[in-house]
Amino acid sequence: MGSTNYIYRFREGDADMRDLLGGKGANLCEMARLGLPVPPGFVITTEACREYYRLGGALPEGLWDSIQQHVAEIEEAVGRRFGDLTNPLLVSVRSGSKFSMPGMMDTILNLGLNDDTVDGLAQATGDRRFALDSFRRFIQLFAKVALHLEAEPFDDAVAEAKTRTGAASDAELDPDALQEILERFREIIRERSSTPFPSDPWEQLRIAVQAVFESWNSARATAYREHHRIPHDIGTAVNVLAMVFGNSGWDSSTGVCFSRSPTTGDRELYGEYLPNAQGEDVVSGARTPKPIAGLADEVPDVYRELVEIVDRLERHYADVQDVEFTVEHGRLYVLQTRSAKRTAAAAVKTALDMAREGLISHEEAVRRVPAEDLSQLLVPRFDEAAKQEAIRQGRRLAQGLNASPGAATGRIVFDAETAASADSDESLILVRPETSPDDMPGILRAAAILTSRGGITSHAAVVTRGLGKPAVVGCASLRVDTRRRLLSANGTELHEGEEISIDGFSGEVFAGRIETVTPDVSGTGELALLLTWADEIRRLDVRANADTPDDARQALTFGAQGIGLCRTEHMFFQPERLPFVREMLTQAPAVSLMKSEIEDARGAVNQATGEAREAAQKRLRAAEARLANSEDAKAYGTALDRLAEYQTADFRDILRIMDGKPVVIRLLDAPLHEFLPPYESLLQEVAVLRATGGDPQALEEKERLLESAKSLQEANPMLGHRGCRLGLTYPDVYEMQVLAIARATCDLAREGLDPRPEVMIPLVMDASELRALNARLERVTREAEDCPQPVTIPFGTMIELPRAALTADRIAPEVRFFSFGSNDLTQMTFGFSRDDAEEKFLSFYLESGLLPRNPFQQLDEAGVGRLIRIAVEEGRAANPELELGLCGEHGGDPDSIDFCHRAGLDYVSCSALRLPIARLAAAQATLAQRERDA
Amino acid sequence: MGSTNYIYRFREGDADMRDLLGGKGANLCEMARLGLPVPPGFVITTEACREYYRLGGALPEGLWDSIQQHVAEIEEAVGRRFGDLTNPLLVSVRSGSKFSMPGMMDTILNLGLNDDTVDGLAQATGDRRFALDSFRRFIQLFAKVALHLEAEPFDDAVAEAKTRTGAASDAELDPDALQEILERFREIIRERSSTPFPSDPWEQLRIAVQAVFESWNSARATAYREHHRIPHDIGTAVNVLAMVFGNSGWDSSTGVCFSRSPTTGDRELYGEYLPNAQGEDVVSGARTPKPIAGLADEVPDVYRELVEIVDRLERHYADVQDVEFTVEHGRLYVLQTRSAKRTAAAAVKTALDMAREGLISHEEAVRRVPAEDLSQLLVPRFDEAAKQEAIRQGRRLAQGLNASPGAATGRIVFDAETAASADSDESLILVRPETSPDDMPGILRAAAILTSRGGITSHAAVVTRGLGKPAVVGCASLRVDTRRRLLSANGTELHEGEEISIDGFSGEVFAGRIETVTPDVSGTGELALLLTWADEIRRLDVRANADTPDDARQALTFGAQGIGLCRTEHMFFQPERLPFVREMLTQAPAVSLMKSEIEDARGAVNQATGEAREAAQKRLRAAEARLANSEDAKAYGTALDRLAEYQTADFRDILRIMDGKPVVIRLLDAPLHEFLPPYESLLQEVAVLRATGGDPQALEEKERLLESAKSLQEANPMLGHRGCRLGLTYPDVYEMQVLAIARATCDLAREGLDPRPEVMIPLVMDASELRALNARLERVTREAEDCPQPVTIPFGTMIELPRAALTADRIAPEVRFFSFGSNDLTQMTFGFSRDDAEEKFLSFYLESGLLPRNPFQQLDEAGVGRLIRIAVEEGRAANPELELGLCGEHGGDPDSIDFCHRAGLDYVSCSALRLPIARLAAAQATLAQRERDA
Repeated sequence: MGSTNYIYRFREGDADMRDLLGGKGANLCEMARLGLPVPPGFVITTEACREYYRLGGALPEGLWDSIQQHVAEIEEAVGRRFGDLTNPLLVSVRSGSKFSMPGMMDTILNLGLNDDTVDGLAQATGDRRFALDSFRRFIQLFAKVALHLEAEPFDDAVAEAKTRTGAASDAELDPDALQEILERFREIIRERSSTPFPSDPWEQLRIAVQAVFESWNSARATAYREHHRIPHDIGTAVNVLAMVFGNSGWDSSTGVCFSRSPTTGDRELYGEYLPNAQGEDVVSGARTPKPIAGLADEVPDVYRELVEIVDRLERHYADVQDVEFTVEHGRLYVLQTRSAKRTAAAAVKTALDMAREGLISHEEAVRRVPAEDLSQLLVPRFDEAAKQEAIRQGRRLAQGLNASPGAATGRIVFDAETAASADSDESLILVRPETSPDDMPGILRAAAILTSRGGITSHAAVVTRGLGKPAVVGCASLRVDTRRRLLSANGTELHEGEEISIDGFSGEVFAGRIETVTPDVSGTGELALLLTWADEIRRLDVRANADTPDDARQALTFGAQGIGLCRTEHMFFQPERLPFVREMLTQAPAVSLMKSEIEDARGAVNQATGEAREAAQKRLRAAEARLANSEDAKAYGTALDRLAEYQTADFRDILRIMDGKPVVIRLLDAPLHEFLPPYESLLQEVAVLRATGGDPQALEEKERLLESAKSLQEANPMLGHRGCRLGLTYPDVYEMQVLAIARATCDLAREGLDPRPEVMIPLVMDASELRALNARLERVTREAEDCPQPVTIPFGTMIELPRAALTADRIAPEVRFFSFGSNDLTQMTFGFSRDDAEEKFLSFYLESGLLPRNPFQQLDEAGVGRLIRIAVEEGRAANPELELGLCGEHGGDPDSIDFCHRAGLDYVSCSALRLPIARLAAAQATLAQRERDA
Repeated sequence: MGSTNYIYRFREGDADMRDLLGGKGANLCEMARLGLPVPPGFVITTEACREYYRLGGALPEGLWDSIQQHVAEIEEAVGRRFGDLTNPLLVSVRSGSKFSMPGMMDTILNLGLNDDTVDGLAQATGDRRFALDSFRRFIQLFAKVALHLEAEPFDDAVAEAKTRTGAASDAELDPDALQEILERFREIIRERSSTPFPSDPWEQLRIAVQAVFESWNSARATAYREHHRIPHDIGTAVNVLAMVFGNSGWDSSTGVCFSRSPTTGDRELYGEYLPNAQGEDVVSGARTPKPIAGLADEVPDVYRELVEIVDRLERHYADVQDVEFTVEHGRLYVLQTRSAKRTAAAAVKTALDMAREGLISHEEAVRRVPAEDLSQLLVPRFDEAAKQEAIRQGRRLAQGLNASPGAATGRIVFDAETAASADSDESLILVRPETSPDDMPGILRAAAILTSRGGITSHAAVVTRGLGKPAVVGCASLRVDTRRRLLSANGTELHEGEEISIDGFSGEVFAGRIETVTPDVSGTGELALLLTWADEIRRLDVRANADTPDDARQALTFGAQGIGLCRTEHMFFQPERLPFVREMLTQAPAVSLMKSEIEDARGAVNQATGEAREAAQKRLRAAEARLANSEDAKAYGTALDRLAEYQTADFRDILRIMDGKPVVIRLLDAPLHEFLPPYESLLQEVAVLRATGGDPQALEEKERLLESAKSLQEANPMLGHRGCRLGLTYPDVYEMQVLAIARATCDLAREGLDPRPEVMIPLVMDASELRALNARLERVTREAEDCPQPVTIPFGTMIELPRAALTADRIAPEVRFFSFGSNDLTQMTFGFSRDDAEEKFLSFYLESGLLPRNPFQQLDEAGVGRLIRIAVEEGRAANPELELGLCGEHGGDPDSIDFCHRAGLDYVSCSALRLPIARLAAAQATLAQRERDA
């Protein structure tokens, strides 16, 4: 056999061989085949690397012989010999795996130099300074990468020499200074290395190849692969190239350029270069590179050639290219080409442009833009220059968690009430230790939210993401003193009313004002065009989670095909309604009791005989009288009627805006105590009133409220009396809501519109709940007032409890649709409370790698996803007409959307601001499916 | 075809035809075949009933002709004719389905009488009173069952006549009085019935047969089947028999007798009879029956014959028989036989006796005793006479939920502290509105618990069941005023120190003392023998949930094969340890932070260079000094050391008792705040101290505690920072526990014992948690002090989160065993908080049939069971050596144990007091499996 399997000459490989040659190697081969000026060289395959590990860290048999033969071919090609004392060949040894892992693995340049060959190089080039500089670079890199010595003493030696000689940069160090540095390097290695520095170039090469193999399994490379879900067993290739020297004089240079701007996407050569330098000088930032246009003035021929090459590469690869080049004494070499990383704006523009130029198809354009990146384009951001200015001015106060994207400046308010009652034309930032559902009116009013506690799944974070408002949360270094109305951080104190700026993209908090830039998402923009292409491809429908008419309008702008989740609890929080809500909820248990007493007595009358029967009749009359005369029951009835009116108007407005499109309305889901004043403050108030002998009437009133709050208090409200459990135990609430939906529907139908409400029952765990509720609620729709056409409202259910998913076959026949409530399903499946997990342990789990991703952001396929698949499969089998959607926050996450596509759902629903992301991700899911099918 | 399919003569059927003939019919046939004196008759099959319903409520074709033919055969046999004016045949029409549904369906007696035939009957028997009495009975029953009239006016008419004539009972009504009653009956029917009373006997019979068919679907029958899980579509048979008359004079009688005592199981004829009566008189309680022995004196021949028949039936059926008989003018007839319902004591005794008599096999004896019934035998109960006396004295105060079986009398205490500090020789009943984990010391001390709030899955209920103490909870009519130390109910007030009695079987609460009877569960008793037979049969092992040495000893007495769940949190609640626990928990976050600062700094030192490196070294030294000098850290270390000592002693004691048997020790699981003083009371105290300007030092102390409590407060502790999440974030706690286990194991091994601890990690949701913990904890066991033999402690995990079950294939390779924590798994799968559900909505769900059974009592197979099956199947596939158990409360529930057997678990674990039930149920599960396999 022999080792030829393990090595490919550049002219033997091509761009399709990334698996075997790595990305860099495959592209070097491709460029060589295209006849571009690539230095001669070869690739040691990833298979050799895998074999190296299989052998427990030894070069596979025959590999070394083969390497030597291929180096001989390089010698032949360039007319220099490895280790030659007069005209030595130098090589670079570069890592490169199938997937880009920038900076994670090692590379060694200028290999082949030693005390003898450095003289040869000096002689052959007639440039002693260059030869010594190259040797200096080689030792520095080799010591770190191959000998695993600390970089610090070497850096110190160079820095000292610069200070001593007054050189402004490495490039200005003269041969004497370099000679002294090399002396110092030798000392350092003697002191610190257990193995001596190898002077034999072949020995250097062998060690370097092994060091690159080893760097595949370095801690940082392993962590990087973990994070980016790159398999650990594919290994890296090793590229060995003849060195070309950008540091061989002022007619030499090295640089990087892009075929189009990676920032704006504009079609122009974009990049920078550094004369008399090697690539690492550009990266280290020791010297400031020049704009690429400078090359046109300095060496117009080289520039022209570069433009041609880059243009050819872009056309060849049909993608924006990021090209590394070196000019050696006026001769251009290309050392690497790859697809360019780019901003979201550039991604959209280049994808569209290239499609219009005929370089790529519409599908390919859609595939090219990372869906998640669109979030950058959809909300205001700080003007970058203004933000940098603020940092220079020392106005950056703190760093929190980037909970909800966007940027905002406004005046500080420390409580929700103040915010809610402020003038409407002023921008406010609500600053709290943390937020609770009680703060909703203030949150709705504020431009952005800042909290010192809580994680990215805390109340503030979840609500603001839903609302599309910027938020920074869990900003622990911030002290929020709501009593003294004072915010302090980093030595600065800010009072209520002072201006503050928060960056929801980065989590930064600034004192004072920073100008914002508002995105252009008009219907005629570039993004809109890309999304229409995505819409033509995708199979999944995309709906919005929208609770208000404003939400609904915004959802339409962003392309919603309906509303997948209209939560009704938010409607209940409005200040003018809250009193009625509280009246209804606090009286519901008593009124329910009165009603069930009547039913009990009626049952007894029907069954008993004799005296018992008479007693029962008396009891029935008494119970009926009690209900009829109860002030509480009257207040309860009034509250229900008023809420029914409010809700009818709510639904009419939303259904009107969404005319002809489905609107899934979820009946009340929240635990009741969320609508009452906070239990803890009542507890404290009552204790103080009692201890201080305060106003007895005030005490009595507070005690009554406390009693109510206590009776609604639950140890674990998330697992408590909410969702359809409320609808079953206090039937009036759901009946009121369904009546309002039916009335709104009738009203609009009478106007000739096409309202399409769907009723969604939350928190179902068994088909029996739906049987009980549907019968009762469908009767309510029938009993609603006369309608020009019969009101038939489809009923469906949230699948958000594991048991609902596990018994989907029984639930499906009772409903028209399932909507997966993936937030709650994640909570129950993991046993994670969103309210608690983030702060207490979830961030620890993410940091320590116990969880690779936050399951509230990206749907967990192994657990939650498995339940969804069970429900999809068994639900559809039991009811082939079943419509299937998902309305948790995952509905706006690209990976989760891909899962929804694969699981066979009909639609996803997400907050309006994420609709463009969802539309694009859904199209990409379709394309990925086609690729798998092909 | 023809209708013969639908009817069987008694001599044509047999006892194996219950499906087709119902239980009663099949046994009547069997007795007829045995030649016993059964009145002639026939059975209309259940298939006829099903066909009746298929036809929408019409008799199947040909059935009526066939009925007439078969009645003719009865006429032939008894020599009387149906509707005959001189010697009329009367029949009874009796319901009877495959499964016993006592009293749920209808029966009509004395059918065939009208104004004409009643005279004939009077003539033929020479007894006008008897004829009129029979007619009176017939009308009364027929009006109710077939005409659906209310019973009341008829009852009233009879009562009036008795008053008017001074008759003490129905049997003393003379012919004139009866004649008047019949007049009155006719009036009532005219007034109230839309259809006239049918005088044609054939018409009566047709209506009666249909009425029996219809009674299959009556509301009460449907509800009964629902409750007992009897299918709704099997229908009832109808038995038509020639009437024999126990009311035909004082030489006639009717009665019920048992082949052995259904109360004690003693081998003696047991029962009662009523002279000159029909069966309904015995049931209605209008007259008091005589003991069966009286029959021996009155009619010795009849008695002898009865003894013989009953004895023959018992031998024939090989089970205790419940026989209905009638004596007509000195001639004995048997009307029904069936297996006798019996008390638990009688069930055990008769099963053993009959096996010893050779009537049944050991297996059959084991099958015969309902496992759940054993609970009656295992705890003290009130002496029945003493309890009845208390009721008569009006001492019954209230009725609550029977949360934990047993009965107790003791003095009232209103708080746990008082209870815990009381003299140890006094019986105390802890009376609270509800209990919390803080009350544990008092609960441990008290003889029984009574609460006014909470359901049968509330804290008080769960804890007492675990401890085997009686408890009545959710006793809503009780007012517990802990401030005034006063309990009031039903007009009675009781003060602290006064005596109260509670019955955990029935949920009743009494003022004052009631004598209790303590069960005999000695190793030589009847039950012990039955259980050894069960042990020979069962495949499932049975372990105990036991947290203390006392628990462990009791568990051994009751036959535990090991400890399946030893909870360590209970150990932490002991008063002398609580301060150390609080010290450890409140300092853990700060100390963890200090430790992670040190690690951070160490990492920075290793990576940084130059000035950054120096700064990092400074930071490292500072962090190390902070930890070394921290008073908090010292206190924390001391607390950990003390707790390690306590825990070592705990584990040593338990492992010593369980020498040679496995002891599964669960590491700390409870949310931390359970160990701190209640947050709410701290909140109130601090508010009051602030408002009243109280002692600043006290305020500061309380504020510090409040801060701690607040930082541990969680919105949903059940889904929060507990279980292995604690073990991962605060590693010292678990390391301390495992160290204590290893030390205890070493100590005992050194003594030559065979300790077998197993460590169980709670609340795992992903294999990564186990990988992280096992590595660290196994190192702790290795580092434990020298041991004569190496300490290898198996590690396992609770499967109590849906995600753990769904990813069991990944978890299984990391562990030696799974133990299903079915309590938490039920909570997560249903989204039910045990603490909240019972009171707020679960009882509503059970009452309204939304849930057929409480899923915390009987394992839900559709949801929770499915997850368990997934975990069993996929866990075993991934690790064939995996041991599988279940340690939730379901481990003591017979139906759930049957599921565990079917699911292929290796063992169940339950509280010590339920071990006998579990042993028996496990054997019955094996027998049921054998039956299915056969």
